[in-house]
Amino acid sequence: MRILILGGDGYLGWPTAMYLSRKGHEVWVVDNYLRRRLCLELDVEPLLPLPSLPERARIWKKVSGFDVRTFIGDCRDYDFMYSIFKEAQPDAVVHYAEQPSAPYSMLNHKAASLTVINNLQSTLNVIWSVHKCCPECHIIKIGTMGEYGTPEIDIEEGWIEIEHKGKKDRFLFPRQASSLYHTTKIQDTDLLWFYVRTWGIMVTDLMQGPVYGISTDETELNGSLSTVFNYDEIFGTVLNRFIVQAVIGHPLTVYGKGGQTRGYINIRDTIACIELSLLNPPEMGQLRILNQITETFSVNELADRVRKACESLGIKVHIKHVENPRVEKEDHYYNPTYTGLIDLGLKPHYLSEEVIINMVEKVLKYKKNISKRKIFWGVKW
Amino acid sequence: MRILILGGDGYLGWPTAMYLSRKGHEVWVVDNYLRRRLCLELDVEPLLPLPSLPERARIWKKVSGFDVRTFIGDCRDYDFMYSIFKEAQPDAVVHYAEQPSAPYSMLNHKAASLTVINNLQSTLNVIWSVHKCCPECHIIKIGTMGEYGTPEIDIEEGWIEIEHKGKKDRFLFPRQASSLYHTTKIQDTDLLWFYVRTWGIMVTDLMQGPVYGISTDETELNGSLSTVFNYDEIFGTVLNRFIVQAVIGHPLTVYGKGGQTRGYINIRDTIACIELSLLNPPEMGQLRILNQITETFSVNELADRVRKACESLGIKVHIKHVENPRVEKEDHYYNPTYTGLIDLGLKPHYLSEEVIINMVEKVLKYKKNISKRKIFWGVKW
Repeated sequence: MRILILGGDGYLGWPTAMYLSRKGHEVWVVDNYLRRRLCLELDVEPLLPLPSLPERARIWKKVSGFDVRTFIGDCRDYDFMYSIFKEAQPDAVVHYAEQPSAPYSMLNHKAASLTVINNLQSTLNVIWSVHKCCPECHIIKIGTMGEYGTPEIDIEEGWIEIEHKGKKDRFLFPRQASSLYHTTKIQDTDLLWFYVRTWGIMVTDLMQGPVYGISTDETELNGSLSTVFNYDEIFGTVLNRFIVQAVIGHPLTVYGKGGQTRGYINIRDTIACIELSLLNPPEMGQLRILNQITETFSVNELADRVRKACESLGIKVHIKHVENPRVEKEDHYYNPTYTGLIDLGLKPHYLSEEVIINMVEKVLKYKKNISKRKIFWGVKW
Repeated sequence: MRILILGGDGYLGWPTAMYLSRKGHEVWVVDNYLRRRLCLELDVEPLLPLPSLPERARIWKKVSGFDVRTFIGDCRDYDFMYSIFKEAQPDAVVHYAEQPSAPYSMLNHKAASLTVINNLQSTLNVIWSVHKCCPECHIIKIGTMGEYGTPEIDIEEGWIEIEHKGKKDRFLFPRQASSLYHTTKIQDTDLLWFYVRTWGIMVTDLMQGPVYGISTDETELNGSLSTVFNYDEIFGTVLNRFIVQAVIGHPLTVYGKGGQTRGYINIRDTIACIELSLLNPPEMGQLRILNQITETFSVNELADRVRKACESLGIKVHIKHVENPRVEKEDHYYNPTYTGLIDLGLKPHYLSEEVIINMVEKVLKYKKNISKRKIFWGVKW
């Protein structure tokens, strides 16, 4: 298959590109370096070395023999997007090209505005480019479990049947997110659902939980093939941040009571889920929604697991509850369904002590690069 | 009260401004003339004369003795918005500043993109300006009944309690719109609901049906105080378009079977609803949603009523079913609730034969301005 990966320079995009090219797909990658630019502006450079995208593609070619075509450009620019889709005629597009940080979206008006405009404009351009250039192209979109928030009812995979005053209908599962970033993902879903109904396009919307992990089989082939790994409060996801805190002897910072429960997924499983979605497309005119998580943890449980794994390595870890900078429930009901991807064949990599130890050992190699100052930013909701 | 009206040059904005200033409120009006520019570009100029906004304010002052302060500027420009809110310190803001046409939003990529960016950026800027400059300011936002679409269950006023697998929670009523424009209103609601929960702002979101009418007490005071009245397929709402078609002997063009049912409201009642919302604000931290319609009709019923009223004036009217250019159900269940505004004191002006006759007589005076060519544009979904 020919696959276009938008946001292919990112934490998930680059490992996905290598993985799919190794599986024999023809992979084209697009990125505008937004994430790199924001990290530079906020002075939160990632932990691992990060050659340019074309340079990584050259290294990948040398190491693996596989090609990844790279294009530096902005998915907000419709002329650029249209020309790429027109030329590529992709069988599928994996759309990661969004501002991905909740804290960034809450930083100030400029960041809020960038998040809304970047995410919606890129999604609108993907939809229009597909409709105009390759209407049978499968759009694989990364949503977030955060779209659902933390309701008092069980969370289904995207849809719910509502019975009301003796009549019934099927709707998108109700969505109410806890950051502006997550809200833009709800708005993406609104756009996709509208155009699926109207134009009959084919979409898989993956409601992903926070991703953890630093390595895939492909990143391990060469030190310059690493993924972007942030450990700061803005772009670092919680488990990745805890690992770095543990390594430098910083207490693991749990926000508030720590009862906030979410669904998590290993980066290796994210990539497997993309492949499973590709190989098992929905029907034309279908918006298929899958919950892309493999297990749920409270923040307290995550911190405990990191502490225990580190102790087995002789690293002493403290856990500190800090004032919660976010507006969120710290103790709540949470019961999501996530069988769809398992049914497609996903074999999860669960969060074992071994997985944590592997992450710690990798981070230890780059310990000298860690800057404690970068971890906290004081972003408040 | 000091009231800021955004989009104050428009079909509803200008009559609202005159009405509220006459009621003794201090009214500031902002507009960037987007609607005028789009009408000019698409060659669908409105029917009635339309002096500039400051000129209309001068005429209004002369005729009524009341001041309306006017500002020409773009609500997408946050610096401009912030400075207006900072100076005005309004008690309430009425946010009409959106691209308001469903067919326009479906015209091409440029129009789609403008609709998404304009509507979301302006709403985001209103929220941020209120939060930063006047956090107790009441935001009155014009949504649309179209956000709900045409579900198989009864439509409630904004919210629904869902019981699912033995547990219950309250959510926004499910939304699924039938145009991109209507989808941007869903996305506005997503933004408002997020910031209401996070920052505790005070919002009334009015789910309005298609508005009809050409006159209010204030527009009738002087020929130069008319509202913008479009009768074309892009910016003209259905009843207004039927009246103009009737006057020039053009068949009333019903899309498809004509069973499409919606809630409608007279322009006089729209303005009354804004005033009732102003005088009865919600609590801080509340998103109050009210369905702003006074009765429901199918398109066939509207066409029949126009035909009958015209016959009583001796005007012969034909009704023609044309191929439906939209993707929508032509025969469907529709049972919305709309008691909230009645409970606040709304006294509806229903769509009587007299109301239609008054509209026809007004349009007859401007018959020479009507250009048949402008009515149809051939926009398809």
